[in-house]
Amino acid sequence: MSHDPQVLAEAIVRDMYAGDAMSAWLGIEVVEVKPNAAVCRMTIRPEMVNGFGVCHGGVTFALADSALAFASNTQGRVAVSIENSMTYPAPVHEGDVLTAVASEEGSSRKLGFYRVAVTREDGTTVGLFRGTIYRTERLHPAAEAKQ
Amino acid sequence: MSHDPQVLAEAIVRDMYAGDAMSAWLGIEVVEVKPNAAVCRMTIRPEMVNGFGVCHGGVTFALADSALAFASNTQGRVAVSIENSMTYPAPVHEGDVLTAVASEEGSSRKLGFYRVAVTREDGTTVGLFRGTIYRTERLHPAAEAKQ
Amino acid sequence: MSHDPQVLAEAIVRDMYAGDAMSAWLGIEVVEVKPNAAVCRMTIRPEMVNGFGVCHGGVTFALADSALAFASNTQGRVAVSIENSMTYPAPVHEGDVLTAVASEEGSSRKLGFYRVAVTREDGTTVGLFRGTIYRTERLHPAAEAKQ
Amino acid sequence: MSHDPQVLAEAIVRDMYAGDAMSAWLGIEVVEVKPNAAVCRMTIRPEMVNGFGVCHGGVTFALADSALAFASNTQGRVAVSIENSMTYPAPVHEGDVLTAVASEEGSSRKLGFYRVAVTREDGTTVGLFRGTIYRTERLHPAAEAKQ
Repeated sequence: MSHDPQVLAEAIVRDMYAGDAMSAWLGIEVVEVKPNAAVCRMTIRPEMVNGFGVCHGGVTFALADSALAFASNTQGRVAVSIENSMTYPAPVHEGDVLTAVASEEGSSRKLGFYRVAVTREDGTTVGLFRGTIYRTERLHPAAEAKQ
Repeated sequence: MSHDPQVLAEAIVRDMYAGDAMSAWLGIEVVEVKPNAAVCRMTIRPEMVNGFGVCHGGVTFALADSALAFASNTQGRVAVSIENSMTYPAPVHEGDVLTAVASEEGSSRKLGFYRVAVTREDGTTVGLFRGTIYRTERLHPAAEAKQ
Repeated sequence: MSHDPQVLAEAIVRDMYAGDAMSAWLGIEVVEVKPNAAVCRMTIRPEMVNGFGVCHGGVTFALADSALAFASNTQGRVAVSIENSMTYPAPVHEGDVLTAVASEEGSSRKLGFYRVAVTREDGTTVGLFRGTIYRTERLHPAAEAKQ
Repeated sequence: MSHDPQVLAEAIVRDMYAGDAMSAWLGIEVVEVKPNAAVCRMTIRPEMVNGFGVCHGGVTFALADSALAFASNTQGRVAVSIENSMTYPAPVHEGDVLTAVASEEGSSRKLGFYRVAVTREDGTTVGLFRGTIYRTERLHPAAEAKQ
């Protein structure tokens, strides 16, 4: 792997994002990447609201889940989700710009525990997401190339 | 409210589904509705896979979350999600047809606790979702009309 | 391992229980064991209530967690908890007899997903617990002896 | 209620702790209280380990749950747990001194979302707990007396 964790993190996320049709479809952007951390952003479109006129929980979840996927794969080994949970402290509406900040809270050799906070542009927390991931032994191509 | 809980359940879900842009966008169908229960189905499209070539967790989550929303609103009072969690026992790929079965596991006057199992067409469980909802005092229009 | 999964399951749980000081301290009994399943029971004592006069959440959780530990270790490989979640549909009081039924909802080679339902003697559900476990490569002594 | 939120928080937790037999039984101490926050501590005793020689998950959970209960009740209204989840990044052994730090991550009028981090004396994170609580309309005696 690269001797520079930041270079490796960015290369991996660039590759993942290039193949991530769902993030593209939802309009999720990657704003920042660091080892074990990522910030993603998206704007709520009309087709993302549910029957109550508020943003479907699946949208906020997908944003947080993408941020988790990017953050947890930055070390070089392919990481997969084991379990996620999410709460919704405040509603989200069409036009809102959401930012998801993913960071690692704890880890063992095989597991990683992440927290993702999702906020609206006015700073209100609209989603608190937690993700547990399993680190496989497989390396990302960017990590292999740099070994 | 209607004296027939089944009629009420169907009327509420019909109204919710009509306004649910996100479920329509994802191609989620409502297969069955009963009081406190719902079955939804969708087919995984190319734009729903992530950077690993497997279905984005947000898609399976959104299907389960829609099933929860329909199931938990069948009684007449508007129910909103408080907390969700999800695990992924097996991967999902493009072309898979997923079925989500939502049922109530427990309840109190204000809270409802639901379980949603998501399976592939071969019967494999690919998602285990749990949702806690809060029952507001507001009634669905279909429930008001029938009072 | 034993050719009889039921014999193996019982031998493993007997060994685990013999060393489980916490379950003994709480008065948790093992009522039934089957492959991937276990039923535990306990009576709520005066020292188990919290400042509101109701049973401390940690007690109901510990009962469910013990049932999960027994159920998830019945196959022979040592299983450890990754993540648990719990909801409380109804309160528990001193003198209540609680029964926890743990069963497997899904699994992969390395992971197991369990559900534990906790009920009072009147049948009311008082706890809905979910546990995700990781199966290590280590064998229980009872599984080694029978290989 | 008292005009000083700190005085109120301390009075409420003092009352709750005085009636909390389970926290006393486990040897849980309250180290610090602030509005919406609490720090608790305990030492792992021989009777708290499970069949693998490590601390029973129910013990770490109970410590975190007590910290949540104290933190979430500091505002004056009685708060009850709706849902908790917990992960275990590292094991806990007999003799370990655990510290649980509970803080609010988000809230609405009726709900509060808390995070509790549990660490060993060497600073290792051994438990990541999340709790969602419901704020009832009932006031704590300490809050009523000061109105």
